[in-house]
Amino acid sequence: MCRWLAYSGSPVLLERLLYAPAHSLIDQSLHSRLGAETTNGDGFGVAWYGAPSIPAVYHSVSPAWNDRNLRELAGHVTSPLVFAHIRASTGSAVQQTNCHPFRHGRWLWMHNGFIGDFARVKRDLVLEIDPELYPEIEGSTDSEVFFHLALSLGLEHDPPAAVERAVGIIEDVGRKHGVQHPVQMTVATTDGERVYAFRYSSEGRSRSLFFSTDLRQLRTLHPVNPYLADLGDESRLVVSEPLSDLTEAWNEIPESSWGVVQPGPDEMHSFRPRRLGAGSG
Amino acid sequence: MCRWLAYSGSPVLLERLLYAPAHSLIDQSLHSRLGAETTNGDGFGVAWYGAPSIPAVYHSVSPAWNDRNLRELAGHVTSPLVFAHIRASTGSAVQQTNCHPFRHGRWLWMHNGFIGDFARVKRDLVLEIDPELYPEIEGSTDSEVFFHLALSLGLEHDPPAAVERAVGIIEDVGRKHGVQHPVQMTVATTDGERVYAFRYSSEGRSRSLFFSTDLRQLRTLHPVNPYLADLGDESRLVVSEPLSDLTEAWNEIPESSWGVVQPGPDEMHSFRPRRLGAGSG
Amino acid sequence: MCRWLAYSGSPVLLERLLYAPAHSLIDQSLHSRLGAETTNGDGFGVAWYGAPSIPAVYHSVSPAWNDRNLRELAGHVTSPLVFAHIRASTGSAVQQTNCHPFRHGRWLWMHNGFIGDFARVKRDLVLEIDPELYPEIEGSTDSEVFFHLALSLGLEHDPPAAVERAVGIIEDVGRKHGVQHPVQMTVATTDGERVYAFRYSSEGRSRSLFFSTDLRQLRTLHPVNPYLADLGDESRLVVSEPLSDLTEAWNEIPESSWGVVQPGPDEMHSFRPRRLGAGSG
Amino acid sequence: MCRWLAYSGSPVLLERLLYAPAHSLIDQSLHSRLGAETTNGDGFGVAWYGAPSIPAVYHSVSPAWNDRNLRELAGHVTSPLVFAHIRASTGSAVQQTNCHPFRHGRWLWMHNGFIGDFARVKRDLVLEIDPELYPEIEGSTDSEVFFHLALSLGLEHDPPAAVERAVGIIEDVGRKHGVQHPVQMTVATTDGERVYAFRYSSEGRSRSLFFSTDLRQLRTLHPVNPYLADLGDESRLVVSEPLSDLTEAWNEIPESSWGVVQPGPDEMHSFRPRRLGAGSG
Repeated sequence: MCRWLAYSGSPVLLERLLYAPAHSLIDQSLHSRLGAETTNGDGFGVAWYGAPSIPAVYHSVSPAWNDRNLRELAGHVTSPLVFAHIRASTGSAVQQTNCHPFRHGRWLWMHNGFIGDFARVKRDLVLEIDPELYPEIEGSTDSEVFFHLALSLGLEHDPPAAVERAVGIIEDVGRKHGVQHPVQMTVATTDGERVYAFRYSSEGRSRSLFFSTDLRQLRTLHPVNPYLADLGDESRLVVSEPLSDLTEAWNEIPESSWGVVQPGPDEMHSFRPRRLGAGSG
Repeated sequence: MCRWLAYSGSPVLLERLLYAPAHSLIDQSLHSRLGAETTNGDGFGVAWYGAPSIPAVYHSVSPAWNDRNLRELAGHVTSPLVFAHIRASTGSAVQQTNCHPFRHGRWLWMHNGFIGDFARVKRDLVLEIDPELYPEIEGSTDSEVFFHLALSLGLEHDPPAAVERAVGIIEDVGRKHGVQHPVQMTVATTDGERVYAFRYSSEGRSRSLFFSTDLRQLRTLHPVNPYLADLGDESRLVVSEPLSDLTEAWNEIPESSWGVVQPGPDEMHSFRPRRLGAGSG
Repeated sequence: MCRWLAYSGSPVLLERLLYAPAHSLIDQSLHSRLGAETTNGDGFGVAWYGAPSIPAVYHSVSPAWNDRNLRELAGHVTSPLVFAHIRASTGSAVQQTNCHPFRHGRWLWMHNGFIGDFARVKRDLVLEIDPELYPEIEGSTDSEVFFHLALSLGLEHDPPAAVERAVGIIEDVGRKHGVQHPVQMTVATTDGERVYAFRYSSEGRSRSLFFSTDLRQLRTLHPVNPYLADLGDESRLVVSEPLSDLTEAWNEIPESSWGVVQPGPDEMHSFRPRRLGAGSG
Repeated sequence: MCRWLAYSGSPVLLERLLYAPAHSLIDQSLHSRLGAETTNGDGFGVAWYGAPSIPAVYHSVSPAWNDRNLRELAGHVTSPLVFAHIRASTGSAVQQTNCHPFRHGRWLWMHNGFIGDFARVKRDLVLEIDPELYPEIEGSTDSEVFFHLALSLGLEHDPPAAVERAVGIIEDVGRKHGVQHPVQMTVATTDGERVYAFRYSSEGRSRSLFFSTDLRQLRTLHPVNPYLADLGDESRLVVSEPLSDLTEAWNEIPESSWGVVQPGPDEMHSFRPRRLGAGSG
């Protein structure tokens, strides 16, 4: 459906993340290899953290490959934490309010995949959203509803639990409506400090998701790897599909897992949707 | 907030409606005289009926005055029933799905004004919408919610009653939330046969609304009036503000009224919001 | 580079030309099979003739596949002569003034291919354009310069000769500047009566070009072919790549040829660039 | 026609320049007081210098007042040298390549006004442009041609002389074609170090232009003026119209003058178009 990239680490010029890699996100917008769609030209978004605690978000309805303003920004903006997303719409309108990453205060959210039969389940899902948060919804995507559901369920306090609860609700509601595969997802979310990534689908055949190898190891294997050579050791990428053919540089995140990129050791755990009233999992 | 125009009568080239008048809708997009805002540059829409029963809708996020495609279409499209709307957003996004006229099957809807404190009352209003219709909502405007509320309350069968009921609900919900003036509106709606126009506001100070004088009378007064000279006698315009300084050509629709332009004599009646459980008015 | 379609014949709803075929132009915008680029998402244009002698032109910077207004127009506009073009930019800006078809009075022009090393030769080519026509150029494409060059050389009076002269000049200027392959082209042009199509390239390896088989023959071969069944016998398509896998329906236009679709028998001839001062060929 | 703003001084968040002032450039886009047009909604541009020597340029076809990306950027980008321009087109297309500021290497250029009867003189002016620079022209405005003319005449080495020569040529060419008032202009140009501003018109009735009072003086007059209180003493604004009603804060640049904001004392001189072959002035 879509492709995305999350970067955390040494401050980096956006151009190096978005344009420089052999199979960059910009290249993926024209020719995705692993996506459900080869063309991801229905708008895009980039968000980054700078001096203010609220991240900047740039949304465009143009295909990423021909947006000149993106190239300008990418050549001037440096940031230690960047989210980028290219969209292949499955029907909802191509408009800025449907572009990821979505933002709530300091939090960002982006999603590849879908909520199954969204038109049928949308109303019931929206009813689960905190009425205080509800008016914030501006677009018409399943992904934005998913985000606000997770926010309503505690995303800002315990992201993995909130996403597991949100998926639990989506699966319950979907099954009530006879939807065979209620959720297909890779998701990234962050508060500007930690980056959480999720890979899950009701059918157990989730969209691909990769994280970059520890740069210390990678430098040992490829001492002259030009692309990431001068980034700090903590720098990490999470991506829908690898940005290069250097296979040692990328590790697949397993089915039904979530991970967090953070100060100190990163973590990875299994992901289990939580049903309401079924305990905390 | 916005300006609109509804035309019904002899098939007319859109250009004559949209560009030719001295104070045309295009001119109003730059310099409205009677509107709450002088500039109406936050997108626009035009809809017309042709051979198919479903009308065509053209929505654009550009200001009407600089949209070249609109000029092209206006020079080639002829129609007996045209709705046109220019937008001045009060905050919601400038995107095609927020542009009027909105469409449901054969029906069109456009609105000038607002639902007071919409963010506060939106959720309660959305809950009143028929769940079958709910997934059709694509944008984030009060006007689209208003339309779907009216559809849920029988717009397709008895438009005046449905709008009176919708306004009754909006006023009830608004007052429950402490909104002083829940509705401000001029509305036009049509099924391609009859054009219904409404003027109402909770505070009793509604946005302006005018309809064109019967062309037979007008020709008697101004035998050489060039603008509408060759249109059929049944032709009628309903507009937010007059398209010319020819005062005899325009009649103001009174406060708290609705009218219908139809085959046979047109009608005008008073408009009274209907409260639920308060009888059918 | 690009893909295009020219239709002439029975009045047809644009939808049938643009969306209905299995491998329609809309489908080609996402997945071209024979183009130099698989994605043609850098804007598009459609032009059609109606009651006025000047054709309507609709240009958009969105990819054709996600433009909702195009779908609206396609469902309402019927025309006996339609040009449509989807663009894959090779660097020039994605803006409406760079979208084909270009128009001059009653004439339309669209082009797939390029003028080699355009930045180097542009100034010399522009100097060959009639100073009266020069200010009409609004965009930055080689194709629009090519059109104005052909107009300067008599396109409105003898289209094949004018295009042969224009190509002669482009080749002369190109070679003067050391350009190896000065022209690569398929071109369609029309005055609303006749459609001229050209296939040529300096290197003798031109972009593909096809015309539809005579419908009488096709109906004999495929009596129940649904797609074009009810069109008049004179109806004809010229396309960058076939719109279906029905191979009998499409004939390739030979290298270095031009043809004309017109009342009476269509014609095809060889195409020979004309050098200035080298006689009229 | 248009409105612009040039800022040089302490690094400042764009938001403070573009949105905070009472009569900010964003407000002017809706309600200009001194402009030839009250609405400046035909696109806009912002450019700023950061770490790279080449400035970033953001161009948009939306009106400045409703562009959400501009608000995002303005809340995150800090720069010591900013150009911003809002456009009211007099006919040329609303497209990014027609948005100011224009850029050539480290140089920026923006213009309010026009070259009289541009369609008539354009070709002759373009012929005066250095053939090496000619292919850089991407849009269709008089302002971009003016910029490239000035570049061809030495803008990068002696800006005032180059602009005086460019205006000399424009006036010569215009008069040759019978144009009564060949130039109307306020212009700003910069290399990232110095900001040059010009006010001139052939008819001697030039568009308004103001520069901000020395902040040391202003603080003496208005010790608690909140808007510019914490900016460095060298900070300076040059604007089409004042951003506030604080009349002591703004000085009008006299007719037929140019000035430069630079390290050390700023300067102001009279502006005299230079005719070719008429000595160097």
